[in-house]
Formats: sequence, structure tokens, C-alpha cells
Amino acid sequence: MTKVGILGAGQLGRMMALAGYPLGFQFSFFDESPDVCAGQVGGLRIGRFDDAEALRRFGDSVDVMTLEWENVPLAAANLLADRLPFYPPPRALEVAQDRLVEKTTLNGLGIGTAPFAPVETQAELDAAIAQIGLPGILKTRRGGYDGRGQALVRTDAEAHEFLEETSQPLIYEGLVSFERELSIVAARSTTGEVACYPLVENHHRDGILRLTLAPAPNVSTALQARAEAMARELLRHLDYVGVLTTELFQVGDELLANEIAPRVHNSGHWGIDGAVTSQFENHVRAICGLPLGDTSATAPSAMVNLIGNHPPVEQLLAVPGAHVHLYGKSNRSKRKIGHVNLTPSTDEVLSRLQALVADYEDG
Amino acid sequence: MTKVGILGAGQLGRMMALAGYPLGFQFSFFDESPDVCAGQVGGLRIGRFDDAEALRRFGDSVDVMTLEWENVPLAAANLLADRLPFYPPPRALEVAQDRLVEKTTLNGLGIGTAPFAPVETQAELDAAIAQIGLPGILKTRRGGYDGRGQALVRTDAEAHEFLEETSQPLIYEGLVSFERELSIVAARSTTGEVACYPLVENHHRDGILRLTLAPAPNVSTALQARAEAMARELLRHLDYVGVLTTELFQVGDELLANEIAPRVHNSGHWGIDGAVTSQFENHVRAICGLPLGDTSATAPSAMVNLIGNHPPVEQLLAVPGAHVHLYGKSNRSKRKIGHVNLTPSTDEVLSRLQALVADYEDG
Repeated sequence: MTKVGILGAGQLGRMMALAGYPLGFQFSFFDESPDVCAGQVGGLRIGRFDDAEALRRFGDSVDVMTLEWENVPLAAANLLADRLPFYPPPRALEVAQDRLVEKTTLNGLGIGTAPFAPVETQAELDAAIAQIGLPGILKTRRGGYDGRGQALVRTDAEAHEFLEETSQPLIYEGLVSFERELSIVAARSTTGEVACYPLVENHHRDGILRLTLAPAPNVSTALQARAEAMARELLRHLDYVGVLTTELFQVGDELLANEIAPRVHNSGHWGIDGAVTSQFENHVRAICGLPLGDTSATAPSAMVNLIGNHPPVEQLLAVPGAHVHLYGKSNRSKRKIGHVNLTPSTDEVLSRLQALVADYEDG
Repeated sequence: MTKVGILGAGQLGRMMALAGYPLGFQFSFFDESPDVCAGQVGGLRIGRFDDAEALRRFGDSVDVMTLEWENVPLAAANLLADRLPFYPPPRALEVAQDRLVEKTTLNGLGIGTAPFAPVETQAELDAAIAQIGLPGILKTRRGGYDGRGQALVRTDAEAHEFLEETSQPLIYEGLVSFERELSIVAARSTTGEVACYPLVENHHRDGILRLTLAPAPNVSTALQARAEAMARELLRHLDYVGVLTTELFQVGDELLANEIAPRVHNSGHWGIDGAVTSQFENHVRAICGLPLGDTSATAPSAMVNLIGNHPPVEQLLAVPGAHVHLYGKSNRSKRKIGHVNLTPSTDEVLSRLQALVADYEDG
């Protein structure tokens, strides 16, 4: 029986295991904290991501490894990739962990992005603003998520203040006036087989994903094809195995890449109930060399995140078409503690669900 | 976070937990053997079902209890039901554990069965055969499953031989000349809410379920209504909570009950992929007092059991519409080690899947 080891034991790893058990695999997790929700559904090893010996022992206890968190130290990933099948490949992490490398790689593949420039000094900041203009967004090159580690800056003063506060390498990005945010989830197997999900439309508030519409409404065949071509090019270039997510801005008929996530992604959660095969199952299939499953949507679907707190489960379940996914985490402001998939989704029922969720949301 | 304890840690408990985790519950299992497949997906306590102290300790560690195996000793069930919410109620186990009590209860509710008579002595056997005729089926009153503990008898000699061999209380049943075997899975919540799945058609070989067609083809509204009325009457009479399955014979427009299973059932497995809400999720919802989910089929579906051995997973996954469910059990002749749901199912693809499975089957 194949044993799958997962670095990180949050909700993504938890849902990976829940999707992978029916394929006959076993799952265990490695995390720095014992208070992690995937520990409820599989074996949990506690250790530090910079403890080479602990990682080696964990690696030796499984047959194939993957991750649910892209900021796994590169040294750890390399150490493990030398010992056993480890997906996605460390090179993909290297690209995804640094916004400068990420955007440079994207542009190198002919994939458009917002204009950007690296910023480490005040002089570089002034040059970047002179080149790209104001307003813009300053982001830490490493480590940000859910809107953390970035700031919209409208003046030179605001920009310099952020540089001083963070005192780490930044990237300055031009503001793109996009029509909407989309993303594409794609999987590539050890055999080279690729499968792409339909483009989905994402709505954020305060930097946190709140709502995904899947498939995204009003997507032309050409737009879907363009997104798939980008995803395929990235997967090929990175010799990627597993699920890779690309966040996109739609500007007219064009797509600009915002960032990539070398893992299953919040904007793919709808597929547990709304696609023939979920991103979690396809990730497990991909890293285990199994044929990929059908990525088609079975109905217009929506995914609503539960942030910080949630309505009583019985109220959520009373919404027609609602499928509840709680992560087994305690409530905390701004924390993703679950999501609700609506399949099929209609405007009216979705509004009702969103209003219900908003009444309890904390963050 | 509600903790659910399950007596028995086989595939039924495993699938219950996999369906229940997304609702935010925690699961642990109690079983006599450490070599049980649900232990891979939740906490496992080893103990004997007749060890009152071990059961009490397990019961005290959870908030609500249920079971995946109807032959839990009644004393254990009663002991636990006195301490915490325990579903289904012990009375339902008492009825289901003894074929004589079961059939008498069914008839008492106006639900038809094959003719039957209790047999403990040679004189009773002769009387039963005189009353019901030959051929017939002799079954142990307790403990049989998957065709074990029963024999088709065509002569007095065969009948007497079986009575001597088994040397335990039996029931003698007339052979019903039925058109097909059906079953209905129904759930009743702590709130009294009831939900019934569509009737399904079951095909056995050597006493083991091989194939379920869901919904059963050619079922009239009247037949479905008749089956639901039976299920509701049973649920009400037993003050039942959880999923209850009734196996049926169709004879013309009539339905005779063959047996009841006070639990989720193999003939309900199709619903994981083919129904809006699976029997496993609805069982968990029922015992936790949550609203029951939609039991509708989303497409014509089929369930093919994997017995003893199975084709390589990649071959199963290559069948269009196939969803693989392995139980994490080792191969053993006649053992149920997994199933494949086909959604949507067509005659042609189903035949292909069945042929593939038959090539590897052992038992």
C-alpha cells in the first residue's frame, strides 16, 4: 500500500488525504505544530522544517512525498527529493517562493504580468516608481499570503515607509486595471499527462478569497485555451508533477499572470462537489502516476469561504445545494476555517448563502 | 468539536468517517482487531465487545456513538445507550440480529416476507417442511452474512444434515420466486426527519453482492412509494436514528422484505458519487441531528464490488465515469476489498468494467 507523506498538515493536506484514501493510499503529515487539522485524519509527525534529520526520518517512512505549503525551505525539499519521489519538484518551489524569480520566469515564457521591478534600497524604490508610476503595490519577495506582506502605495512617502517597515527585499508592481480575477488549476502526472480545470472567477476582500464562481461565467473558448496554454507551458518548463494553480487578471481578451501556487488551491475547492474529479484527487493521482480524472464541471458551482467563524452547520446545510466543508480548526479572526460549495449554484441561492455566511464572518 | 465513536472499524466505518470529517466531526473506532482498515483514517481503540469496562472507557471519550456492524452484542449496546446518545437504538439491533424476531416484526407491521418457521429440533424441521414445502432455505437465526450460515435444501435429508451440522437455532424459509432483488436505504434523524434513497437493483453471486444498479431501472412511482412506506413504518416502529437498509424481493407489483440491516449498506455505496448526498454523510447527519441531505441520484449509476483481488487502479480509473473506492485491506478470497462506482453508467461501459473486474476477482 503506497504511503504518501505530506509536508504541512493544514486543510489542504487534510482534503488531499480525504480524497486519496479511496484510492487505497495511506497518508501521514509532517508539521512544526501539533495543533494542525490534518492530524485528525492521518498520522502526524512533529518536527522543524529545518531539522534535516527529522525530515530524513519522515521521508524514510513513506513512498512518495508532496506538500500543501509552498514555503517549505528549499534545502528541505532538495534533501528529500534526493531520497525519494518528491513532488512538485524543488525548482517549482524556488520559482514560487520569490515573487521576483516568479515574475521573471513567467515573462521568460512569454506569459504577461503587471510591470514590476525589484526593490531593496531607497534608490531602487525611486527608480521603480519613476519607471512604473504611482499608485502601485509593494510586496515582500518572500512569505506573504492572504494579503499579508503587501501594501497599496499612492505616494512616495507611503512607499518609503513600507520599505523601512518591512526591511526585506521587495518587488514593486504596477497596478493593472483588470476586469476580474480568474485562476486556472492544472495537474500534470509523472507520466506527463496534463489536465486543466475550467477557468474560475475569484472575489477577494481584504486580500482573502471570499467567493469563487466555477466555471467562471462568460469565458470564451479562446480565453480558456489561452489560460490552458499558459498552464501547460509552466508545467512543462518546471517539469512539474502535481497540481499547479495560476492566478490571473483578465484585461479585455488578455490574461496576465498574477502569481502561481505550486499546490492545490483555495480557488479549486469547488471541484470537490462540482467537478467530476476534485483537484485533491487529481493531485494524488498525479504524484502517484495514475491517470488523471475528468476535470469537467458537473453544474454551475460556487465556493464561499468561511472566515474566522461560521453559522451553525444546520443552517448551512439547509441551503439547497450546499455542501459543507469544515476543516476541524478553531475559530480565529481572518482564519480560513471551512468553505461551502454550492452545486448547482443560482444567483438567488448564492446570495442567500453569502448573506448567511456574512452574518457570522470574523475577518 | 463533536466526537463520534464507531463500533467496528471496517470499510463501512471508514467511509462514514471520510464522509463525516467535512462536517467538522472527529471519529474514532472500537474494534477487537488492530488489523482493521478504518484505523488508517481515525483513532482506533482495541478491545473486546464483551469487555464492559473497555466499552465504557471508549464511550466516555466520545459524544455520540454508532456502529458499522449489527452484531454488536446487545449487552454492549444497552450499556452504552444508557451512558450517551447511541444510534441506532439497541432495540433495532435486537430485531436485526435474529432472523426470527426480524421476520415476525416485519409481518407484525404488515410487511410481507417469504413464509418462514423456526427450527430447533428435527420435529420442528419436519413440521416446517410440511407447512412450507421443499425446496427451501435453512438459515441460522443469528450471525450469517455474505451467504454464510445458510443453505438451499432440496430434500429432507439435506435439511436434516444442515440442522445437525450447524447445531444452532435455525429458520426455515420458503423459496420466493421473485423477479429481482431490490433494496431501499433510508435515514431518520434525531429530529424525526426521514429521507429515502431511490430503490436500487442488486445482483448477488455465491451470496455476495456483486453489482448494484442505482436507481433500479423500471421502477414505477407506486413501487417506490410502497418501498418508502415500508421503510418509514420500520423507522417509526423502531424509533430508529441513522441509516436503515431493507433488502427486498420484487414479485410482480409487490415487495417482500428479505432482511433489514440497521446500518449503512453495500447497496448504498453508489451514492458516494451518484447521489447528491451519500448514505455515509446522511448517517452522520442523522445521528448528529443535522438536516438530512438530498438523496436524489444525479445520474444512472452502477456499483461493482471488488472481491478478493482487483485490477491495477490505473486500469479501473481508465474506465470513463469510474470512481474507485479501495478500503485499504489486503487481498483475501471472497473478501470485499473495494468497489467501483460508475457515474454515469451505460450498458456498454458497465460491461467493460465488469469484465475487467471479473478477470481479477477471487471469490
